[in-house]
Amino acid sequence: MNNYKNLVDNIRKKGSFLCIGLDTDLSQLPSHIKESKWPLFQFNKEIIDNTHDLCVAYKPNLAFYEAEGVDGWIQLKMTIDYIKEIDSSILVIADAKRGDIGNTAQRYAKAFYESLNCDAVTLAPYMGRDSIDPFLQYKDKWSIILALTSNSSADEFETLTVSNEPSMPLYKKVILQSNLWGDKDNIMFVVGATRAQKLKEIREFCPDHFFLVPGVGAQGGTIEEVAKYGMNSNIGLLINVSRSLIYAYKEHKQDPDSSLNFATYSRLYAQEQVLQMQKVL
Amino acid sequence: MNNYKNLVDNIRKKGSFLCIGLDTDLSQLPSHIKESKWPLFQFNKEIIDNTHDLCVAYKPNLAFYEAEGVDGWIQLKMTIDYIKEIDSSILVIADAKRGDIGNTAQRYAKAFYESLNCDAVTLAPYMGRDSIDPFLQYKDKWSIILALTSNSSADEFETLTVSNEPSMPLYKKVILQSNLWGDKDNIMFVVGATRAQKLKEIREFCPDHFFLVPGVGAQGGTIEEVAKYGMNSNIGLLINVSRSLIYAYKEHKQDPDSSLNFATYSRLYAQEQVLQMQKVL
Repeated sequence: MNNYKNLVDNIRKKGSFLCIGLDTDLSQLPSHIKESKWPLFQFNKEIIDNTHDLCVAYKPNLAFYEAEGVDGWIQLKMTIDYIKEIDSSILVIADAKRGDIGNTAQRYAKAFYESLNCDAVTLAPYMGRDSIDPFLQYKDKWSIILALTSNSSADEFETLTVSNEPSMPLYKKVILQSNLWGDKDNIMFVVGATRAQKLKEIREFCPDHFFLVPGVGAQGGTIEEVAKYGMNSNIGLLINVSRSLIYAYKEHKQDPDSSLNFATYSRLYAQEQVLQMQKVL
Repeated sequence: MNNYKNLVDNIRKKGSFLCIGLDTDLSQLPSHIKESKWPLFQFNKEIIDNTHDLCVAYKPNLAFYEAEGVDGWIQLKMTIDYIKEIDSSILVIADAKRGDIGNTAQRYAKAFYESLNCDAVTLAPYMGRDSIDPFLQYKDKWSIILALTSNSSADEFETLTVSNEPSMPLYKKVILQSNLWGDKDNIMFVVGATRAQKLKEIREFCPDHFFLVPGVGAQGGTIEEVAKYGMNSNIGLLINVSRSLIYAYKEHKQDPDSSLNFATYSRLYAQEQVLQMQKVL
């Protein structure tokens, strides 16, 4: 069971609010992994074996599995089952960004919460409450709603002023409106790390919820800054690191097929993140 | 190849701008179909066999396949392959409503355009251009962007006034902005049938693009009204009908396992839609 209290307890116990993004790209894998029958799973398994004591969540990015067709979907399921087997207290977040009308959202909820056994799924808010509500009907599961993302075109729509209120950008409206549908126990928000000032503003009008924060590392955000502006008394943060962690061996120019496992570099990278987190916890 | 010209030609040739939504729900299928090894595919196959001369597009709704896990994904692929085999001029639209940062959107584009061989995919605009651009790089493929949807909570965000311009609801901003990224040859918009007045307004500022129009039938829109307000000189409309067509036998209280095929009722229903379309073509 992965409810709010358990998540906070787990963060305190592990001294980590790290989420590891499994954006596992077949074309990026070491050649000895590519040759295995289930390369995405094999890669993920070694990452998980080397990092599960250092993180509180894994976040498989659905696109990378769907790109490989049926085999990708099989390996997504294998990955999730393996995480649950290794440590059932680790949150599994399907980074799927789904969003559709009620009867369709119900089927997505079934796909992610039942068929795949995930604890959380990322959702797009554009279509409003209908598209989120079916997910909120599941006990001890989370809907993680896009608010302010870290990509460069986020400003095209997310920061537009709405409702003729100068202090009401769309992402704020999304957060305030979503808080009418659920609460901190079943909703989190995606808030990018790249704009610390915005994180501070959002924390002011949304004090209790967890934020899933991408954009640390490659995109320029830092753990120190995110913690300074985004942390609350129950931590309230999951910082996600994907490519810079899972492909850490590339930075070390290490031969990924050498006897020293590529995932060892991922572990070192994860340890560095956790050390920074422990400074602020 | 399914480009703009071919689509318009196909609509004129068939006298139909019908899109059939394959929202194939395992729990809703006739019992003799449920017993087959691939029930979603078996059901779809019979619908396709009975309707492919009457429509110009099929739109599998991804949620219904994902809900069945790996088997669902297999049957989605079987369905798409079967449509292409029966009539390669029919547009296959993946109703997936994806939307994510650039490197992830690239993988989704690969999943839908390469691995699944779809012609089009529905996309959510919340994250801006980054999330659409990778799809637009494929020649003779379509991005179908959510603008004004037909669900009851569409007004929560989609119709909010943005940019301090009283005449600029978010859905209009999405359409105008998207038209900077591509054109009628690679972009369509989702515009619900339930608000005819809005359809008229949208056609005025977006004269050339195709609109994918859900909400006819069960949700209350009519073909006559949609055509009156939404049609342009190249038709510019794909009207989608899903549940009321694929489960038409339920309205006739027909035993779905009788010797008279359930899909015969779907054919009759499709014929009724096409007759109405031919009146306005």
